[in-house]
Amino acid sequence: MTQTPTTPLLDTVHYPADLKAVDDKLMPQLAEELRAEMIDAVSRTGGHLGAGLGVVELTIAIHKVFDTPHDRLIFDVGHQCYPHKILTGRRDRIRTLRQENGLSGFTKRDESPYDPFGAAHSSTSISAGLGMAVASELEGVKRNVIAVIGDGAMSAGMAFEALNNAGSLDARLIVILNDNDMSIAQPTGAMSAYLARMASGRTYMGIREVGKKLTAYLGKNIDRAITRAVEHARGYVTGGTMFEELGFYHIGPIDGHNFEHLLPVLRNVRDNSDGPVLIHVMTQKGKGYAPAEAAADKYHGVNKFDVVTGAQAKAKPNAPSYTNVFAEALIQEAGFDERIVAVTAAMPSGTGLDKFGKAFPGRCFDVGIAEQHGVTFAAGMATEGLKPFATLYSTFLQRAYDQVVHDVAIQRLPVRFPIDRAGFVGADGATHAGSFDVAYLACLPGFVVMAAADEAELKHMVRTAAAYDDGPISFRYPRGEGVGVEMPERGQILPIGKGRVMRQGTKVALLSFGTRLAECLLAAEDLDAAGLSTTVADARFAKPLDEDLIRQLATHHEVLITVEEGSVGGFGSHVLQFLAMQGLLDGGLRVRPLAMPDIFMDQASPEVMYAKAGLDRKAIVETVFKALGTHAAAGFAGTVTPLKP
Amino acid sequence: MTQTPTTPLLDTVHYPADLKAVDDKLMPQLAEELRAEMIDAVSRTGGHLGAGLGVVELTIAIHKVFDTPHDRLIFDVGHQCYPHKILTGRRDRIRTLRQENGLSGFTKRDESPYDPFGAAHSSTSISAGLGMAVASELEGVKRNVIAVIGDGAMSAGMAFEALNNAGSLDARLIVILNDNDMSIAQPTGAMSAYLARMASGRTYMGIREVGKKLTAYLGKNIDRAITRAVEHARGYVTGGTMFEELGFYHIGPIDGHNFEHLLPVLRNVRDNSDGPVLIHVMTQKGKGYAPAEAAADKYHGVNKFDVVTGAQAKAKPNAPSYTNVFAEALIQEAGFDERIVAVTAAMPSGTGLDKFGKAFPGRCFDVGIAEQHGVTFAAGMATEGLKPFATLYSTFLQRAYDQVVHDVAIQRLPVRFPIDRAGFVGADGATHAGSFDVAYLACLPGFVVMAAADEAELKHMVRTAAAYDDGPISFRYPRGEGVGVEMPERGQILPIGKGRVMRQGTKVALLSFGTRLAECLLAAEDLDAAGLSTTVADARFAKPLDEDLIRQLATHHEVLITVEEGSVGGFGSHVLQFLAMQGLLDGGLRVRPLAMPDIFMDQASPEVMYAKAGLDRKAIVETVFKALGTHAAAGFAGTVTPLKP
Repeated sequence: MTQTPTTPLLDTVHYPADLKAVDDKLMPQLAEELRAEMIDAVSRTGGHLGAGLGVVELTIAIHKVFDTPHDRLIFDVGHQCYPHKILTGRRDRIRTLRQENGLSGFTKRDESPYDPFGAAHSSTSISAGLGMAVASELEGVKRNVIAVIGDGAMSAGMAFEALNNAGSLDARLIVILNDNDMSIAQPTGAMSAYLARMASGRTYMGIREVGKKLTAYLGKNIDRAITRAVEHARGYVTGGTMFEELGFYHIGPIDGHNFEHLLPVLRNVRDNSDGPVLIHVMTQKGKGYAPAEAAADKYHGVNKFDVVTGAQAKAKPNAPSYTNVFAEALIQEAGFDERIVAVTAAMPSGTGLDKFGKAFPGRCFDVGIAEQHGVTFAAGMATEGLKPFATLYSTFLQRAYDQVVHDVAIQRLPVRFPIDRAGFVGADGATHAGSFDVAYLACLPGFVVMAAADEAELKHMVRTAAAYDDGPISFRYPRGEGVGVEMPERGQILPIGKGRVMRQGTKVALLSFGTRLAECLLAAEDLDAAGLSTTVADARFAKPLDEDLIRQLATHHEVLITVEEGSVGGFGSHVLQFLAMQGLLDGGLRVRPLAMPDIFMDQASPEVMYAKAGLDRKAIVETVFKALGTHAAAGFAGTVTPLKP
Repeated sequence: MTQTPTTPLLDTVHYPADLKAVDDKLMPQLAEELRAEMIDAVSRTGGHLGAGLGVVELTIAIHKVFDTPHDRLIFDVGHQCYPHKILTGRRDRIRTLRQENGLSGFTKRDESPYDPFGAAHSSTSISAGLGMAVASELEGVKRNVIAVIGDGAMSAGMAFEALNNAGSLDARLIVILNDNDMSIAQPTGAMSAYLARMASGRTYMGIREVGKKLTAYLGKNIDRAITRAVEHARGYVTGGTMFEELGFYHIGPIDGHNFEHLLPVLRNVRDNSDGPVLIHVMTQKGKGYAPAEAAADKYHGVNKFDVVTGAQAKAKPNAPSYTNVFAEALIQEAGFDERIVAVTAAMPSGTGLDKFGKAFPGRCFDVGIAEQHGVTFAAGMATEGLKPFATLYSTFLQRAYDQVVHDVAIQRLPVRFPIDRAGFVGADGATHAGSFDVAYLACLPGFVVMAAADEAELKHMVRTAAAYDDGPISFRYPRGEGVGVEMPERGQILPIGKGRVMRQGTKVALLSFGTRLAECLLAAEDLDAAGLSTTVADARFAKPLDEDLIRQLATHHEVLITVEEGSVGGFGSHVLQFLAMQGLLDGGLRVRPLAMPDIFMDQASPEVMYAKAGLDRKAIVETVFKALGTHAAAGFAGTVTPLKP
């Protein structure tokens, strides 16, 4: 491991207030030290590298010019906040980033008063900032509110809604468009092309400048008629840039790595602006670290790496990742059925659709950060007989919930929803956990809701979804690697609404939905060892339920435990509803629905999270014992401690 | 009642194909007859009047020029689809609009092949249309896809996402911007102002036209230098209209009531366009019906009315509407606490916030059709100590689900969510039903979820929400009138997580969440009369649950019925989860969670819907009898028929 870098100037800057005393001329040195410090920290923790490197100068400049935390600084998404954390009293903990009990990888209100708004999902900063700006005006507090948002995030509908509202409210809000022409994926969409066109001009100039420029070019001897002609022509033109049309004063593009540009512009805006301002800043993702500059996409999120060579540590995978299994299964099915198409919302590599897109370029659609549009776009394709797979992370599907309800479910359109990152996600923490999808989908009439118990099951579910044409169908699978089961040549078409019994017992039934099945099987071994004959079943479907299976489990066992990696309201709730309405609880069945606990859980390793959630082998066993009132069952040799109340 | 109008030309047009034979010159006559027919129909049924009247010519022109249903015509929101329905084989049923078993008030795929995409929520048409256009290209089918979208709907983020994607995909899609400068509410936002500026010019001309115009004005003797100067100046300008920047060919504004404008433009686009086209059409809402022209807002949605006078039938309210009670209570509380502010997403009158805005103009924010932004904007205000009430319909809150989770709940910000139109909504049907809010909110850690049992409870909950500062809090209430209870001077602050017992019995417990309480009390009378001593409780809170109350009910009764006007996954599911995990079901309690059935229910009267849903007095009584296995309990004099399985 390399030495920590030498940072004499940065060592004097603990808080933004310390910056005020440092001469403008020293800012480049500070940037260099901050960059070195950040590279070193991320090389040890892994995390988001390229985004932070791109905004080192911008972050310093903002903190130097503005009076944070009285002035509110909001980083959109938050991938780029590490330099900000170092400058705002958190340098001593920067090497705990994304670790259990460490700093969050995103901005977080609980962590610091310098984080006035937490983020992790994209495109929220202008809305939040506008709320703060309006509140400050209402309360008579003079305050600058600065939202820093990337070009990718700017293309989301929510950002447009916020610009639209800010322009009409005429609030004192500063939006800094951090244009690195490089979001997580290649930016897509017309907005991105538009920004690129603007940036390619040496200097931006609004239409209002055209007349002046023209006059200057022609010299002072220009005939009055020509002047009038110019005025006349200008009258027909509707305006300037898109941002100006939306009511913003638009500055830029300016060089986001040059303090001689950044500081005067920010000071000018601070001192003279009176309404919404947009500053278009050009930056380079990964700036200042050669390996990251050379391949910005590879250094968006990194593992631990060697600072000198840039080589990232590779986890040794025991089994293929669920994401890869999904992608390969979809490619395989798409080879058999040309109606299969796929949609991603700016996450081609995270969802594995980059591979699908390479295999079938014309059938893969990256709509940008636009989940709402993406789902309804898929619905439109479904009306024409295509088989769209709208592939999103569980947490991002929340962005398109109304489209799922209104455009897909009510019309019973066969849109397929592969749901990646279902359940706990480890280092990304609460904002990225896939906790609620089963609750918010299984309540929808006509929806088929599946969860894969392992990677082979996932392959079956891809094929099942491809074959199913009667309405919407979803299948969830977690982040990370599979369990190493043998993989079939090709997935099978599963019968809709049918689960499977993995082992048969007589006293205890464990009914799993999703990848907790492996823990259930381990728990069953413990229970059997304790003399409690245990059945384990994989429900496969939360909707429609396998009613025959559930009835069997309920009537032939004393205890029924449901296990899922999701919130209350999901699988277990639907099982309970069925049992209750059928009178299957009237006989005193001891039913215990295990679900995620009612907390937003901070980042930690998955194992720690499962234990905390009470969703591991041990917790399942203890739940059974407690249900039976037999904490010390005869013959059980394991180490079981009583559950805390 | 007036006579149905005489419509000799319209009588010959049953389907769009019939239009082809009619001479262009007769189109104004057809428009007149279609308008008369529509006014007559809506005068008998009530419904959306102004929107349809505004697009009579446009609808005729589209069907005349294009080859529907092979060409796909999508009406955004669908308020304006009545003339379309009359022209597409549904005239004989037009007087059943919005009635049980009648035509839907919106476009609906099940209803006609001329409705390729159902709508009712706003801003989905461009996404759906793009999906169809892309699918048609993939399938090698030549087809026009036309999305008709209003200026209000165009301001939503989802529409922007779709434009952004369409521009980059370069798909063959025709977007008709129906600009009537009049959505349901006064349009808000900078986009609206932008459209108004464009429309105010006599002729729109893109920047690309400036040079030509200038040259023409100056005549042919212009010096080469001047031409070069113009070219030079143009090079600095970034482009044309916002739509052109997003990759659309932009035509208009044109007069949407003039066939001599509409027909040639549509034919030209049909025959010559090759990529995304936006046609900006100016129309007048309510056009051709004097009372509607004079007050377009009052004729957006109407009751039955007198065609001659325009006078609308007034329902005789027995009690104030929930919406009014909410608005007045909020105004009252805002008088005591200046931190109270309110946010609506383009529904000021539907939510009652128009009244609030009149009382406190600086504290009411209509963000436009922008639910995502609206919720995060409210979250931003909450961080600064304001008390925002983000007031939405249950069905529209779905649009902001991720913002509720990510920006509000995870940060535990005290945003208040008054949720109007919770439960069944009658004539608006499945798309507007508020079915899922309890399921998708009660799963969120730290959320307080309330439902008002009557209008006095609603008043208490407004005050409770205003007083509660520890995190997000919601309260749901239905469409329509209260039950006529006595109203308190001012609401009380309810203890969080505490329900109330309305009557005490010994054998049966009915636990209601929301306005079904009244039916529970009636059912209790029947049950008591049948010798079954019945307790009725109002839970008030789905989260946190009143655990003491539920434990009492579970341990002192043989039967426990939960009753709610929402889907599975909501209140009843959380009660079951608690009961199961506490072992309170182990003794054989007969628990029956009554919730909305697992169907999307078409429009009908609320009473019909409740009966169908099994959520009325009779169904509650029958559920108890069935649970006890005593269909003919001694002493019961009512008429109870067995439940169908």
